[in-house]
Amino acid sequence: MANRKIKVGIVGGTGYTGVELLRLLAQHPHAEITTVTSREQAGSAVAAFFPNLRGALDLAFSAPEQAKLDQCEIVFFATPNGIAMQQARALVEAGVRVIDLGADFRIKDIGLWEQWYKMKHACSELVAAAVYGLPEVNRAQIKNARIVANPGCYPTAVQLGFLPLLTSGVLDLDHLIADAKSGVSGAGRKMETQLMFGEAADNFKAYGVSGHRHLPEIVQGLSAVAGRDVRLVFVPHLTPMIRGIHATLYAGLMGKIDLQALYEKHYADEPFVDVLPAGSHPDTRSVRGANVCRIALHRPQNGDIAVILAVIDNLTKGAAGQAVQNMNLMCGLPETAGLEQIALIP
Amino acid sequence: MANRKIKVGIVGGTGYTGVELLRLLAQHPHAEITTVTSREQAGSAVAAFFPNLRGALDLAFSAPEQAKLDQCEIVFFATPNGIAMQQARALVEAGVRVIDLGADFRIKDIGLWEQWYKMKHACSELVAAAVYGLPEVNRAQIKNARIVANPGCYPTAVQLGFLPLLTSGVLDLDHLIADAKSGVSGAGRKMETQLMFGEAADNFKAYGVSGHRHLPEIVQGLSAVAGRDVRLVFVPHLTPMIRGIHATLYAGLMGKIDLQALYEKHYADEPFVDVLPAGSHPDTRSVRGANVCRIALHRPQNGDIAVILAVIDNLTKGAAGQAVQNMNLMCGLPETAGLEQIALIP
Amino acid sequence: MANRKIKVGIVGGTGYTGVELLRLLAQHPHAEITTVTSREQAGSAVAAFFPNLRGALDLAFSAPEQAKLDQCEIVFFATPNGIAMQQARALVEAGVRVIDLGADFRIKDIGLWEQWYKMKHACSELVAAAVYGLPEVNRAQIKNARIVANPGCYPTAVQLGFLPLLTSGVLDLDHLIADAKSGVSGAGRKMETQLMFGEAADNFKAYGVSGHRHLPEIVQGLSAVAGRDVRLVFVPHLTPMIRGIHATLYAGLMGKIDLQALYEKHYADEPFVDVLPAGSHPDTRSVRGANVCRIALHRPQNGDIAVILAVIDNLTKGAAGQAVQNMNLMCGLPETAGLEQIALIP
Amino acid sequence: MANRKIKVGIVGGTGYTGVELLRLLAQHPHAEITTVTSREQAGSAVAAFFPNLRGALDLAFSAPEQAKLDQCEIVFFATPNGIAMQQARALVEAGVRVIDLGADFRIKDIGLWEQWYKMKHACSELVAAAVYGLPEVNRAQIKNARIVANPGCYPTAVQLGFLPLLTSGVLDLDHLIADAKSGVSGAGRKMETQLMFGEAADNFKAYGVSGHRHLPEIVQGLSAVAGRDVRLVFVPHLTPMIRGIHATLYAGLMGKIDLQALYEKHYADEPFVDVLPAGSHPDTRSVRGANVCRIALHRPQNGDIAVILAVIDNLTKGAAGQAVQNMNLMCGLPETAGLEQIALIP
Repeated sequence: MANRKIKVGIVGGTGYTGVELLRLLAQHPHAEITTVTSREQAGSAVAAFFPNLRGALDLAFSAPEQAKLDQCEIVFFATPNGIAMQQARALVEAGVRVIDLGADFRIKDIGLWEQWYKMKHACSELVAAAVYGLPEVNRAQIKNARIVANPGCYPTAVQLGFLPLLTSGVLDLDHLIADAKSGVSGAGRKMETQLMFGEAADNFKAYGVSGHRHLPEIVQGLSAVAGRDVRLVFVPHLTPMIRGIHATLYAGLMGKIDLQALYEKHYADEPFVDVLPAGSHPDTRSVRGANVCRIALHRPQNGDIAVILAVIDNLTKGAAGQAVQNMNLMCGLPETAGLEQIALIP
Repeated sequence: MANRKIKVGIVGGTGYTGVELLRLLAQHPHAEITTVTSREQAGSAVAAFFPNLRGALDLAFSAPEQAKLDQCEIVFFATPNGIAMQQARALVEAGVRVIDLGADFRIKDIGLWEQWYKMKHACSELVAAAVYGLPEVNRAQIKNARIVANPGCYPTAVQLGFLPLLTSGVLDLDHLIADAKSGVSGAGRKMETQLMFGEAADNFKAYGVSGHRHLPEIVQGLSAVAGRDVRLVFVPHLTPMIRGIHATLYAGLMGKIDLQALYEKHYADEPFVDVLPAGSHPDTRSVRGANVCRIALHRPQNGDIAVILAVIDNLTKGAAGQAVQNMNLMCGLPETAGLEQIALIP
Repeated sequence: MANRKIKVGIVGGTGYTGVELLRLLAQHPHAEITTVTSREQAGSAVAAFFPNLRGALDLAFSAPEQAKLDQCEIVFFATPNGIAMQQARALVEAGVRVIDLGADFRIKDIGLWEQWYKMKHACSELVAAAVYGLPEVNRAQIKNARIVANPGCYPTAVQLGFLPLLTSGVLDLDHLIADAKSGVSGAGRKMETQLMFGEAADNFKAYGVSGHRHLPEIVQGLSAVAGRDVRLVFVPHLTPMIRGIHATLYAGLMGKIDLQALYEKHYADEPFVDVLPAGSHPDTRSVRGANVCRIALHRPQNGDIAVILAVIDNLTKGAAGQAVQNMNLMCGLPETAGLEQIALIP
Repeated sequence: MANRKIKVGIVGGTGYTGVELLRLLAQHPHAEITTVTSREQAGSAVAAFFPNLRGALDLAFSAPEQAKLDQCEIVFFATPNGIAMQQARALVEAGVRVIDLGADFRIKDIGLWEQWYKMKHACSELVAAAVYGLPEVNRAQIKNARIVANPGCYPTAVQLGFLPLLTSGVLDLDHLIADAKSGVSGAGRKMETQLMFGEAADNFKAYGVSGHRHLPEIVQGLSAVAGRDVRLVFVPHLTPMIRGIHATLYAGLMGKIDLQALYEKHYADEPFVDVLPAGSHPDTRSVRGANVCRIALHRPQNGDIAVILAVIDNLTKGAAGQAVQNMNLMCGLPETAGLEQIALIP
């Protein structure tokens, strides 16, 4: 294995999940980036577009039509929603394994997906075949998946935060609350007024309180583990920082439970979930650029509402890092390969 | 009244609530700043310390001992907790009316105060006499108060956010949740590692989840209005912005209610509470430097949990602006005098 | 005059100079905003677009065609370059006085303007008539101007910084250097990748080193005062802050001079230029939202290069505040009317 | 060599250069951190203090007295100025090789050092022996050094920016100008009012214009290469970002020269200096966390002043990364070992 190099392709390499994939894969001991597509940048050097890659990646963007993606072992889609579902079928039929960082294959209920994403689904049969790529829940299935639906950033943090409690028998499954705060890069490298520096800096606001696309994804994931439908209030907020999600979760408890012990035991063998000592408050910067979710447990005034704090980097454990973790699982590599970077402090 | 000028003094003028008071009072049509004390800066020009005041305030800091505070009509304490309780009695006895921006007179239960503030109270009889300076609750009493306990920043946002629901009969008073996010200036202009730029910038974290000093203040205020004890989970977070509090409040509803109508009616005559149109998400920057609380109401998925979003500037409506509003009430001035600045956007 | 209200119109009210004009004029004792145009927002409330104005401005945007601008005494253009030159002639002929916050009337040499702005000029005769609106240079002419070309933000800071030296006889006019740093709002409220939060935050870079549109404007202004052509190297930088320009100017000295005395004397009567005490370093925040330029003088190691530090708020003294200052001059109002806000610290 | 592990110790591991050293060395293929000292934190886990290191470093801080530094091959001092000079002699005599990230051994002229650092030097004989650790100038001497004076952050950027021109024969060595902008972490993890978030955020200012401690260090380095004394005006600025230095250098040219070719040739073999294509403007974020200096060359209006833009991460190439680069040279390791991290974008 020491010499094995997985040939990987990236469709849509000019966004934030794209550049994060490039950063991780260019340093990965067992991956070789053979193709990065971009319609707009075709022909120009990837490292001219993202100068952090100068000296680390010697490759030009390919036009989508010319990219020989079928010669890759793994293809990542780092594209806007609605693209992967157009192209995945041909790749899967050619024997390529696909990891979609978008939302096309995340929701099993096609009608529900079409309602939230406001387009017709182009490839419903692959939705059924796709494995939801949260290793802490679906590790075994991911290993053999032909197509992995890489989770959204908020869904990763919220699900990892609630997971150990879901089957504890003491959780009020009808009144879950997730108050989540995200850095601006969570919205991607796209032009929206509210994402401009002059709008987002030195400012804080909620958005999508009446309904956010990550809500059905989270509810589907929590319900699957809980074994029944759960109800969740999910309030996302835009925070003046570049990377990071801080999920503050409120869980009604209907009985006695040692939260700290429950979580430590549940995650004891997980390489990328870190349960902090009792009384801790995780910083988002403690996971900046790192493929880790750090979690702390609280029960204020010893009352019947638990407060769970979970932080991830939305681009790493919340997107590209988790995608590489999935690739490692799919290819029989060590799960942590290429993912051991230490977060940048300060 | 056009020519009336209230003589005001400020004890402790070198902190953030101090400089905000100076900004507001230097532009106030009916106030004259006669004394600003600072032990460290005594003798030096206030405008040398805070250069935004150059040309607007021609005054030097006085040593506390030399300050002729008893010649003021109103004295503001913009001091750390524990100072005002040492000095207020003498001023009140001299006929000066006092507004304390610290916490010394906020909690009626002296034992509870001593437990949270970890010191012995020096002036319990004035606690009983003090009026809690939230005009939207106590306007009439403030007018005649000799001493006003100006509310904390979190308590202002959280109380204004819950207020109309407290007596609605449909609120679950045992499971209130306040998830609050504050800019860094909320902690004051003091040296703490977590408040350094290198620590707080591009970072987000909760703190004090097990218990924050503003919790008993909020519970006291909510309980007083509700007419019974309430239970609240209060989770404050440090946000990488200078000014602003965003309180996201979760309220269990036990019956039907038109939230929008309830709030619009309740606050119809309030000059400094602004209920936004249905579906809104207030920005903290929309109140930057302004003495306003903006509130929006949501009921996600039409469920039984209401989400109330309330924003203030922690230094203005959350501290110095509210203190000036209280001064206006105490002195029979128009409540909005000197408080009509428009927030700075961008 | 106490009761006089100037009727003002604003063309293009949805950008950053527009909202800053609205903030200043809504609080101006002698101005009444009668019309604000926006093609996109026509019909909707201005305060719905800029919620800081809720309660302070009760007006809807007008479609440009329907706006009765000719009934205004003063019309401000807060539009992209190339708009004012299309519309100013009709207004001026109707007796309206025009202040253009864009660049259309700033450069006297039409050919040079067309070269830098890459379009054909539509109204060269008004360029000749226009007065360059830097009151510290052209106060007398501004009073009677029919059309004022409001200076750019960088040009304001750089010219005010060099001004007293230009005629001193000791300045090397062939090797002026202006190293200027601007907050992101200087680029306006427009969609550009480099202005996104995810690109501009926690980052710093120079841009336009080979040539920036403000260069010919600055050189024209400096040369006019110096009485001969000057040569300037101008390097602008994008800084991760919202507002503020810090110009660090390097001036070769060819003889003895008391810089501090020269500047203090030159600006002694200027209401909006503040020469700081010797040894100072001005913060940009000391002018945030204020119509002031603060200047400090240095001569490191007593050598032959002077270092002049000049700060302004690019949207206030660098744009909308200066425009209001020009309006005051044109209308015979006190020059400082409506411009006495104190900068927000912190 | 594949299995060789250098035993390293770090004196003063709780500051920003300390945590950056820990990040780099914990991931270094040929280093083993055996000791990290801290008087205040002695006995507690390093990863409890810097949670980014959880799972990556299993070590507690040692009290300075108990630390067995003499059993290390390399000891890094990441201490305030004045500490290393007290302790280096004993270590060097014990055969340990020392890399001082502070300033104690940087200035050859002891009198000059004492004047700028305002203390008496404790170990002048080691100053003579120390090698200034800028590999691009002193690579050969570093390899055999017993003690390396690791350069300051500003000096690294400014020297690398001017270096190729110094011996070109066309540079005006009497009028060098370095306008440098630094992120706040450049000042270290220390308590100073101006470094608080509430003071430094959304703000920009120059400091130390009359004289900064890095001035004599830069002048010494430039003069040594130029072969004669140079004169430099150095103006540092505090920028609201965490990491990064942007040096904008102004160089008077007295003859013809192809800057781009000169720099590309000079740095052709340097692993950590990257000359950008003509016309570029480097972002500081393109080197965030990476041990690289990126440089771009400009000659505005084809005049006689060249503008050189040089960016580094003040904590990496400006401190800890360069220190590891020096360790690699001293220990005969590949110069790039452990230093190939790609900068984090966004």
